Amino acid sequence: MELLDGISKRRSVRKFTDQVVDREVLNNLVKAGMQAPSASNLQAWRFVIVDDPLVVKKIKRFSPGLVGDPQAIIIICSDYGYAESRKSGTHYKEYGCIMDASMAAENIMLAAVDAGLGTCAIKSYTEKAVRKIVQLPSDIHLEILLSVGYPDGELRMVKRKPFEDNVHYNVWEKKV
Amino acid sequence: MELLDGISKRRSVRKFTDQVVDREVLNNLVKAGMQAPSASNLQAWRFVIVDDPLVVKKIKRFSPGLVGDPQAIIIICSDYGYAESRKSGTHYKEYGCIMDASMAAENIMLAAVDAGLGTCAIKSYTEKAVRKIVQLPSDIHLEILLSVGYPDGELRMVKRKPFEDNVHYNVWEKKV
Repeated sequence: MELLDGISKRRSVRKFTDQVVDREVLNNLVKAGMQAPSASNLQAWRFVIVDDPLVVKKIKRFSPGLVGDPQAIIIICSDYGYAESRKSGTHYKEYGCIMDASMAAENIMLAAVDAGLGTCAIKSYTEKAVRKIVQLPSDIHLEILLSVGYPDGELRMVKRKPFEDNVHYNVWEKKV
Repeated sequence: MELLDGISKRRSVRKFTDQVVDREVLNNLVKAGMQAPSASNLQAWRFVIVDDPLVVKKIKRFSPGLVGDPQAIIIICSDYGYAESRKSGTHYKEYGCIMDASMAAENIMLAAVDAGLGTCAIKSYTEKAVRKIVQLPSDIHLEILLSVGYPDGELRMVKRKPFEDNVHYNVWEKKV
């Protein structure tokens, strides 16, 4: 698939078929995620690939933002302990980790489009419960969940604000 | 360009030619950015396209993280005033805005690869100075700068940790 096609075809998918997603396919999504830029190339990102249907179901129970029944969930975390050991400072934890994780997430969601999959980025979950389910150590920070599965049905268009409304040139007052 | 090729070919570019980047090309990058997911479809992201060489130079003076001489800088901001007017809560400002901006940034950097351009995501700058240069209103939060230009010379490989080091299955202890 052409890169720009993938970018424009990505949608937040909330209805999935029951077709299993092979672990090799899931691995390839995460490999695409790891190609994202990483502040100071720290790569503090960590990924938990959840493809055990029981674990998916448990996480769903504590995630109001997770709609539909995905075959898998990719959990993106940041290793704060590792970041600290590299003397990255609080700045990295506050901005770097979340930005790295988000850019990795976008790569994963685009690679998913290329593989015929649908995804949805989820920030609405009970963090304590999800941490317990996947047994995250205390120094591993949970950043975002991505549901993954084959989309069921047509994807609807997303309403986007006009380009001109959001763009300025050189200084704030100058618009199109 | 194939989507997965673009993902794997993206590099942080810090050496640029003096070839001007047409504004239409810059607009297309931002349009790709606006295709990223947005939490609750709020689209609080705002973009300042800096292509006036004098403004680029001024920003560079206050941005230690900006290496080389890019022809343009895309500044991604979040409109906190708008976010508040939509009653999005502090949660959105703390996570949503920065995640939306980062995913938009990744789309822009990938679309740039497709257009033969190089980019670098920059968080190291004097915020107060950059805000003043582009005259950001007080309720517009500065998220990230992206330098943009045609890369000069071969792009070097990025050292990445082995896939297996960062990936877990279903629970933290289970690795490849």
